[in-house]
Amino acid sequence: MVKLQQDRAVKTREAIVRGAAEVFDQYGYNGASVNRIMRRAGVSQGAMYFHFKSKEELARAVMNAQPDTIVPRLDSDGLQRIVDMTFVWAWQIQRDVLLRAGVRLTNEQDGTGMHDASPYVDWARILETSLTQAQDEGQVNESVNVRQFAELLVSACTGMQMFAKAVSGRQDLPDRVVAMWRILLPGVAPARIAASINLDVRRFA
Amino acid sequence: MVKLQQDRAVKTREAIVRGAAEVFDQYGYNGASVNRIMRRAGVSQGAMYFHFKSKEELARAVMNAQPDTIVPRLDSDGLQRIVDMTFVWAWQIQRDVLLRAGVRLTNEQDGTGMHDASPYVDWARILETSLTQAQDEGQVNESVNVRQFAELLVSACTGMQMFAKAVSGRQDLPDRVVAMWRILLPGVAPARIAASINLDVRRFA
Repeated sequence: MVKLQQDRAVKTREAIVRGAAEVFDQYGYNGASVNRIMRRAGVSQGAMYFHFKSKEELARAVMNAQPDTIVPRLDSDGLQRIVDMTFVWAWQIQRDVLLRAGVRLTNEQDGTGMHDASPYVDWARILETSLTQAQDEGQVNESVNVRQFAELLVSACTGMQMFAKAVSGRQDLPDRVVAMWRILLPGVAPARIAASINLDVRRFA
Repeated sequence: MVKLQQDRAVKTREAIVRGAAEVFDQYGYNGASVNRIMRRAGVSQGAMYFHFKSKEELARAVMNAQPDTIVPRLDSDGLQRIVDMTFVWAWQIQRDVLLRAGVRLTNEQDGTGMHDASPYVDWARILETSLTQAQDEGQVNESVNVRQFAELLVSACTGMQMFAKAVSGRQDLPDRVVAMWRILLPGVAPARIAASINLDVRRFA
């Protein structure tokens, strides 16, 4: 019985976060309201306030769900895993409203009064963990500072999706990510490893 | 007489653009109004409407003024010129309201209904011109696609300033730009050139 109630609570929370993502993706933070999100998610006021007390809490939940939409889709190791993470992200942002809304909220914080660095920092930590492992395995040059490299990748991906959004409605984002790796790989990986990386981004399309 | 009137018109326009930058920097696009900008710039309604017909026109003028705040400060050539451009930008965004407001407006377009890719594209063209020249001089590897490299630099700088804003109020942006070049240089330039690049970002502080 308790288990059933817990399952229901988890499902309700998921429905709210998805509804919030749809509303934030469409209207941005300032154009969204808790009422509109309640209606979109099809939940009662009681259910909403059981899970989330404010629009800001809803926005944080959406922003911080980003890695969950990517990491479970990966099955590679070493440097290829980091490349694949950016490839999956480049496609998912076009079709996954939760990821897209999270990115929009993260980037628009200036205009909202929110100041939450955790989406940037969390992504960088995830990449740094994989990069450290890849460096231990000899797939990333010793001279590379993996923390700085991880933060550069987060920055470059953040900026690429904005550039791609402005010029192509994000359609050319996967190609931009491939171009980034062609420029980065010769400097960060031994030649043998760089040559072995699969840069076919369409396998995740 | 005509010349004097022209000089006055140029000065009025500059005062308006600076006032607009201050207001956009402080309040964002949605929080700004033509009235508030008029008051900040200290100009009459007639003068304002002679130069700018709408808030959107003002925003475009601020966004597209970005390169003017950087390019005249450079005196280096080749690959060093491109490095220096990113270094000057990393400091100027902290102290030049025109640049900072332009970057904010460019990045916040989602929430405003504006869709102007020209700040990204203009920056990329400026970098591409310098990169092409550097490649012709043997300072950038033949294997590097200079257009893609230019667009990656614009993307990385866009994302780095957002990451830096979130974690340090932009104070660590110059160090992030140096870290980017340490990661990029070994892959894009011949070893002799890479070793010769001056990465002391503080000379522009």
